Amino acid sequence: MVETTRKRRSDGEKSRKAILSEAAQLATVEGINGLSIGRLADAVGMSKSGLFAHFGSKEDLQLATIETARALFHELVIEPALVGTTALGRLRLLIELFLRHVEDKVYPGGCFYVSVGAELGAQSGPVRDQAVALSAEWMRLVVSTIREAQAEGHIDAAEDAEQLAFELTGYLLLGNTQFVATQDSAAIERARHAVEGRLAAATRDFG
Amino acid sequence: MVETTRKRRSDGEKSRKAILSEAAQLATVEGINGLSIGRLADAVGMSKSGLFAHFGSKEDLQLATIETARALFHELVIEPALVGTTALGRLRLLIELFLRHVEDKVYPGGCFYVSVGAELGAQSGPVRDQAVALSAEWMRLVVSTIREAQAEGHIDAAEDAEQLAFELTGYLLLGNTQFVATQDSAAIERARHAVEGRLAAATRDFG
Repeated sequence: MVETTRKRRSDGEKSRKAILSEAAQLATVEGINGLSIGRLADAVGMSKSGLFAHFGSKEDLQLATIETARALFHELVIEPALVGTTALGRLRLLIELFLRHVEDKVYPGGCFYVSVGAELGAQSGPVRDQAVALSAEWMRLVVSTIREAQAEGHIDAAEDAEQLAFELTGYLLLGNTQFVATQDSAAIERARHAVEGRLAAATRDFG
Repeated sequence: MVETTRKRRSDGEKSRKAILSEAAQLATVEGINGLSIGRLADAVGMSKSGLFAHFGSKEDLQLATIETARALFHELVIEPALVGTTALGRLRLLIELFLRHVEDKVYPGGCFYVSVGAELGAQSGPVRDQAVALSAEWMRLVVSTIREAQAEGHIDAAEDAEQLAFELTGYLLLGNTQFVATQDSAAIERARHAVEGRLAAATRDFG
């Protein structure tokens, strides 16, 4: 009895994970607002009632999809960057891993944060707030890593950390957007080159 | 008889223009794919059949909406920038007028090109191609203006014009995106500051 419940729960969890992974992919192409339970049921080959057992409402599904994308971003970009032994090293890794996850087409529509953030930016509600929070979380991480690099003496203390984070993120954003539109890695290379130039200016005569 | 026809055509044109202006506004919030004839009929207070008289299909409506946004962008940003007497002056004007049209909330969802480009980037079809073409047109204009400024001796000839255009546009893109999400002009100021810093580096010891 206990085993059956466990097995069922485990099957349910696995299936929920697979559904949300598909949902996150779809959201970067058709929008997270285009993500109805019916549309997703078609995509994963399940019945609508089967999906309703997992997600009570479209909003629940959307919020769970955002959380799934957030977890994947941590796994692919944020956590592996922590191996850097200096803050400047971690900053370079964050940026490189961001660009790599775009170029590797983890999502068909590029960075999930950018795609869903652009879609919902001018709307309102809890789904929009969660999506916007992802981008704010990224900015805070970049700013705090820059400040650590300043404290370690590797980035010029005269740099405004928030301004520098803005400029670096601007390159990543356009690199992502152009790559999605053109499927040409030249856009990723331009972003890399821009980051290197800007970091060279910020670290000149430093570590 | 001729007058009646003329009058009718003129009323039709006026109404078509008003409808498309509303459509462009809506597209930056709900997406150009969310722009059904039924949804737009509600927004402008017309019957669906009345709207069908103007636009035979959703795709016709979408393409006409993109053309309307393109014309407005020319009127507000591109044409007024032509008053600059040097290419560097025109470049600064293009950038400032872009930021101003975002800050002035010409569209509730920020720059139309950015909003609709992000929505359709990973899709396919003629509407997507037209939307992506708008952004490519902007990049070409910025690149050619930078090259003219290099020819006039005001921007360092050693700068890669395409790379510089990419970096400047990256600041504008993030300034737009953050402004839409936060409604805080600090994002526009960061973009201005980034542009000034980058142009200072590109024009150092020059005009």
